[in-house]
Amino acid sequence: MWSVLCLDEIRDVMPSQFDPPSGTRDFLAADVEKREWAFGVLRSVFASYGFEPLQTPAFERVDVLLGKYGEEADKLVFKILRRGEHEASGEADLALRYDMTVPLARVAAAYGSQLPTPYKRYALGSTWRADRPGKGRYREFTQCDIDTLGSASPHADAEILCAHHDALVSLGVTDFTILLNCRHVLSGLLEVFGVTDDMAEGVLTSLDKLDKLTPIGVIDELIARGLPDQTAMELVVTMTAPDATDRIRTIMKECEVGTIGLDEVDQILRLVTAQVPAKRIAFTPRMVRGLSYYTGPIWETEVAGVPGSLGSGGRYDQLIRQLGGPDLAATGTSIGIERVLMALPDDVAPQRARIEVAVPVLSEELATQSFALASAARTAGLRASIYLGASGKLGRQLKWASDAGARLCLIYGNTEREARTVTVRDMVSAEQSSVPIDGVAEYLADFASTLHG
Amino acid sequence: MWSVLCLDEIRDVMPSQFDPPSGTRDFLAADVEKREWAFGVLRSVFASYGFEPLQTPAFERVDVLLGKYGEEADKLVFKILRRGEHEASGEADLALRYDMTVPLARVAAAYGSQLPTPYKRYALGSTWRADRPGKGRYREFTQCDIDTLGSASPHADAEILCAHHDALVSLGVTDFTILLNCRHVLSGLLEVFGVTDDMAEGVLTSLDKLDKLTPIGVIDELIARGLPDQTAMELVVTMTAPDATDRIRTIMKECEVGTIGLDEVDQILRLVTAQVPAKRIAFTPRMVRGLSYYTGPIWETEVAGVPGSLGSGGRYDQLIRQLGGPDLAATGTSIGIERVLMALPDDVAPQRARIEVAVPVLSEELATQSFALASAARTAGLRASIYLGASGKLGRQLKWASDAGARLCLIYGNTEREARTVTVRDMVSAEQSSVPIDGVAEYLADFASTLHG
Repeated sequence: MWSVLCLDEIRDVMPSQFDPPSGTRDFLAADVEKREWAFGVLRSVFASYGFEPLQTPAFERVDVLLGKYGEEADKLVFKILRRGEHEASGEADLALRYDMTVPLARVAAAYGSQLPTPYKRYALGSTWRADRPGKGRYREFTQCDIDTLGSASPHADAEILCAHHDALVSLGVTDFTILLNCRHVLSGLLEVFGVTDDMAEGVLTSLDKLDKLTPIGVIDELIARGLPDQTAMELVVTMTAPDATDRIRTIMKECEVGTIGLDEVDQILRLVTAQVPAKRIAFTPRMVRGLSYYTGPIWETEVAGVPGSLGSGGRYDQLIRQLGGPDLAATGTSIGIERVLMALPDDVAPQRARIEVAVPVLSEELATQSFALASAARTAGLRASIYLGASGKLGRQLKWASDAGARLCLIYGNTEREARTVTVRDMVSAEQSSVPIDGVAEYLADFASTLHG
Repeated sequence: MWSVLCLDEIRDVMPSQFDPPSGTRDFLAADVEKREWAFGVLRSVFASYGFEPLQTPAFERVDVLLGKYGEEADKLVFKILRRGEHEASGEADLALRYDMTVPLARVAAAYGSQLPTPYKRYALGSTWRADRPGKGRYREFTQCDIDTLGSASPHADAEILCAHHDALVSLGVTDFTILLNCRHVLSGLLEVFGVTDDMAEGVLTSLDKLDKLTPIGVIDELIARGLPDQTAMELVVTMTAPDATDRIRTIMKECEVGTIGLDEVDQILRLVTAQVPAKRIAFTPRMVRGLSYYTGPIWETEVAGVPGSLGSGGRYDQLIRQLGGPDLAATGTSIGIERVLMALPDDVAPQRARIEVAVPVLSEELATQSFALASAARTAGLRASIYLGASGKLGRQLKWASDAGARLCLIYGNTEREARTVTVRDMVSAEQSSVPIDGVAEYLADFASTLHG
């Protein structure tokens, strides 16, 4: 199922001076077409929910970008040198987009009253991070985010989840589960188990590893963080038990914040029933999103047999303000589109040959008519090209036509000129027929409708 | 005709800390949709000629990019600081793409045998130049190039010109002329007028200004460059005369290189007749492309009343090798897509409202059904959204629906629940009708086909 997308991986493994920069990729025709198809599908799904596109510059001023996600993230930002006389200073004044959220916060601040309320936007474009390149990890990659700003309602979370679900299904991914949880459920759990506020962040970071480490490994980490042995064990046992959901529902009855969290989870599960089949979404108490900025419902998409997630998100009511934007409630999701693209079969996009109609050129004085034939083919909606090489031999030109994937050749030589016909060669059967010049347009229109249905 | 595209121009003229970086733009929904429409049109035209897409990274290694277009251009390159421990060095190891031709040369070198022969590719994407920003001049702008590598035939030039023509026409630009000339014609002219090889480059640079300066101004420049007064005057008189074309055809009869150039021009004019109406292309001896890398036919697109060109190009048989690629004959054109976009009316792209169907939510217990109604509308191919605000009042929710451009509201309250119906409100006429729940899907399908035809 995992097909190879990256062209430089199928080439010689030795890097050459002509390779793209480390961690980036060149996309030749088939890859571009597959990616553009996927992006078109996503745009269409998002638009069907009333999300609108936003496109911001590739770079932001450094002061907009840096200091927003902590020191570690700042190290991964590509910074742009000042120009002209300032270049020698070695200072940066601009930096490449690290994610789509900082630009969203800036746009919300800049265009506030011009934006609809709530502001439902999608952003689909490149982001750049100077991560160590690795399998499936790039320094230039496409991010695909949908976010709703200005609604505190769980309806907004539910709508985002429906759109997230539809996006994956429309791309042909069907065997996935959206793991749903809520920060309030996690807060409730910590409260019930007596974890103090100052330890909460660290405990959640360790619990987030339940899908990577063994339960014992997580217990060890929790104990190392200072949690009493008994508490650490009971917490992990509760969260990993086969009946964890039921246990937690029972425990939460006594806990106010936990009850709020469970109500939010149940409300969202109820709201999405018409759009998301029950098997594709599950309350999953052990799912802890690592990032501390989430304030409500959180989710992650899991695919059987595929490591990592195909997208994740949640509610982040403080973040837009923290990033320099206005004080707006917000929720959003990020589709792991690079992972989805890797998982898609190569032939998922509707494939068309590079050219469908090839037009040989048999002599210079016949060339104008060959151009006219290519023009007629394009008017009929077919992809057409004339022969551009140096050989005057029909055999060589037919080989070119075949290599280019052409289905028809339109041959016009001296014989055809005298007879006022065109010889049409079917490149699959190698059968040839003679079509009067006046009937070529109609012939091509018929062929186009047979070919494209 | 010149509409305002740039959002930050219609806002307060005072720049704010929330503006995008100088010379760049934020594109909100309407702009993105117009641009994506135009890009889709271009992709489709190029594909119809058998050009295939190529997408390279936003940045290249500095050694790939710098030193290729001279010192002046190098100053306009955005350079990226080295990262990690090397950041303090103030050195750059990467640089943002300055054009689409250097990456094309690198790709031709890297993937040579994997690419078709000839390699006909289009590239549509952002490029970055640290130019002084001005009206219509941006630091981040979209370039749109088509090029054919590996064909020395004038057929390749003619094909590129046909595609260039079709691209403009498909975008709705019709009132334009492609000015066609050939470097060999210019070489012939210089030879006939006795301009020595060492002065040729400078003389052409001055002649290139015939569309900006007065003829006397150009004569002055030529004399300042050391051309004899008589030669300077005769050269300019010949090139600007109303019958310049005829005069030059006569002069060239005695000149070998000039004759070759005229033959190339005539051949191309002949080849494109089926695709390009005669009024849209003209042999124009005074048209001198400034860049010295052109080696054969050259062209530029002129629109009455619009300064600058809507695209230009020509044959550049040495450049790919000079840029570090293989020794390949090449020809190509660049569509001035930012200018075209500025000239396009705002309503050129098929417009759809943000949402077509709005679904109010009248109480929490009815919300699941409201979600299901929005889902049904999307299944019917309509853009639909549920109300995400805090008000439970129908009046407020109808105002939201109207602001969002909705054509229908699907209202489901307690009355409707009891009657097992949905109240459908036409947002234009304000008429309401009652539709049985079971009939809603069919109703919406009918409405969708009425709305979208």
